[in-house]
Amino acid sequence: MGDLVVGVDLGGTKILAVLADREGQVLARIKVPTEADLGREHVITKMAEIINGLLEESAAPAHRVAAVGVGIPGWMDPQQGFLFFAPNLGWKDLPLGTILGERLARPVYLDNDANLAALGEYVYGSGRGTADMVYITVSTGVGGGLILNGGVYHGSMGTAGEIGHITVDPNGPVCRCGNAGCLEAVASGTAMAIRALALVDLGRGAGILAAAGGRREQVNARAVSRAAAAGDAEALVILRDAGRYLGITVAGIINLLNPAAVVLGGGAMQSGTLLWDAMLDEVRRRTLESSLAAVRVQRAALGGDSGAMGAVALAIDRLGPSPARC
Amino acid sequence: MGDLVVGVDLGGTKILAVLADREGQVLARIKVPTEADLGREHVITKMAEIINGLLEESAAPAHRVAAVGVGIPGWMDPQQGFLFFAPNLGWKDLPLGTILGERLARPVYLDNDANLAALGEYVYGSGRGTADMVYITVSTGVGGGLILNGGVYHGSMGTAGEIGHITVDPNGPVCRCGNAGCLEAVASGTAMAIRALALVDLGRGAGILAAAGGRREQVNARAVSRAAAAGDAEALVILRDAGRYLGITVAGIINLLNPAAVVLGGGAMQSGTLLWDAMLDEVRRRTLESSLAAVRVQRAALGGDSGAMGAVALAIDRLGPSPARC
Repeated sequence: MGDLVVGVDLGGTKILAVLADREGQVLARIKVPTEADLGREHVITKMAEIINGLLEESAAPAHRVAAVGVGIPGWMDPQQGFLFFAPNLGWKDLPLGTILGERLARPVYLDNDANLAALGEYVYGSGRGTADMVYITVSTGVGGGLILNGGVYHGSMGTAGEIGHITVDPNGPVCRCGNAGCLEAVASGTAMAIRALALVDLGRGAGILAAAGGRREQVNARAVSRAAAAGDAEALVILRDAGRYLGITVAGIINLLNPAAVVLGGGAMQSGTLLWDAMLDEVRRRTLESSLAAVRVQRAALGGDSGAMGAVALAIDRLGPSPARC
Repeated sequence: MGDLVVGVDLGGTKILAVLADREGQVLARIKVPTEADLGREHVITKMAEIINGLLEESAAPAHRVAAVGVGIPGWMDPQQGFLFFAPNLGWKDLPLGTILGERLARPVYLDNDANLAALGEYVYGSGRGTADMVYITVSTGVGGGLILNGGVYHGSMGTAGEIGHITVDPNGPVCRCGNAGCLEAVASGTAMAIRALALVDLGRGAGILAAAGGRREQVNARAVSRAAAAGDAEALVILRDAGRYLGITVAGIINLLNPAAVVLGGGAMQSGTLLWDAMLDEVRRRTLESSLAAVRVQRAALGGDSGAMGAVALAIDRLGPSPARC
């Protein structure tokens, strides 16, 4: 049996894959566009080519790769490797584990991308040393994954961790899911951009518009961050409010689950300290003392690699003890 | 080894104990006031007397009781049987499992009362047949317990399940924990009573006051329920709002945990269908489709016995397979 594994984070826009040994040491890393619009066959062929590319880059023979872990942006049965629905890929009702296993000629283990990002941070990142950890990613949307009692918690149908659709403001703005006041509708990058655009369209938000190069179509969460960094009052309020809502939800999750760590990743978490500090303020205000004392709230350590490293951890875990140790 | 167990629900105001066989069949049941103000020794002596009373009532010899499970209204390490704090009993930092084991001359297993109520409903009540279940009790306060992957989930320090202190309205009324807008501050029996009293003190709430026999000190959640049953508009709004807040929180928990069942118990859940229907409306509105399809939302089947039956289940589980089956 091979001594290496490949971890793949299959996203709607890009594929990140790493080749790693059984201790999680990365030997090679490749990132390419997904080109999901070119169809499933194209994406699967691409995944096979990436694995060959990783082997080439590390000069390792193919037989050393014992298994492949893959994170999918969708809803699935991870035990059966059956994909119910991956909206960003346009894939539906597929025995994806079997399909990929045949094409990649190795055992392929699947899980939801947010669950694997949680697992990556748990095994190799900010969650190390805990048994109960909550992972939250804040970027265009808000997602999450739960590690409970030392393993990924999937829930009864594999849909656990939908942190972005927890109601945080019952009378808040409408979310893309149809509900009102979801965390995603008030704290995601998209939500911040919508709020900034509303200001600009009212003839306000001059600092944000300037940070967007004066172009309305460039008014996004990054522009808000840049404007806030320059001291723009409107941008600061947008970031502070997003952080507050995030903190209110995080506090609720800590009260419910009493985790040892909450790990936050995703692009929006890199927007300086204001959002982070506003979040922490609410966490401190709204978490029961005993649970607050037990938890550390940290940024993700692996950045954009959380998901691929979680896929590595999944493959290693499913393979069982490595031959070298037996 | 004996073939029976005793399950005790040790509350701040009353002790409920049941004698059961290894299949959970109840042979005898006793309920007495706790009299916690008379001190720990008094309460422990009372527990020993109750066990004797149960044996007498069922004409079973003492050696048949193999173990005792006890639910405690407090924070503890259930593995070690060490109690950190039980505010309603006034007990703090005690090796309670050892103390009770010596006094009751049998192995004694402890857990938090809400966790055991969850376990009781999971093993013998509305949660049967699920692996992931959320139990919520709504009475003077709001509490909860989680069954995840088929067992009680305790969290990293044993404080998981504090559902009453999840923020549901960031700008809501102040809770006794010091935070604002906790579920308990807007949906508990106490919260409903406070709201009704505020009306009465403004010279309104005539229907509620009438349902309280015209006595301000009798204006409580039960009076609100009675007034609502008689069609009083102000009482109906109080119940509906409590139900809505409960539903918003339940929806968030379902989105987070994707349980197969949410089971609701406690006195306030018996206040007719209005609170229940308002809750279900919000659950349906705010839960993602896939998770909503996977969950059943039900009333507790065991009523006030959930906790004692959970203590029975705990004792049976810790004892392992019964001698008869070996």
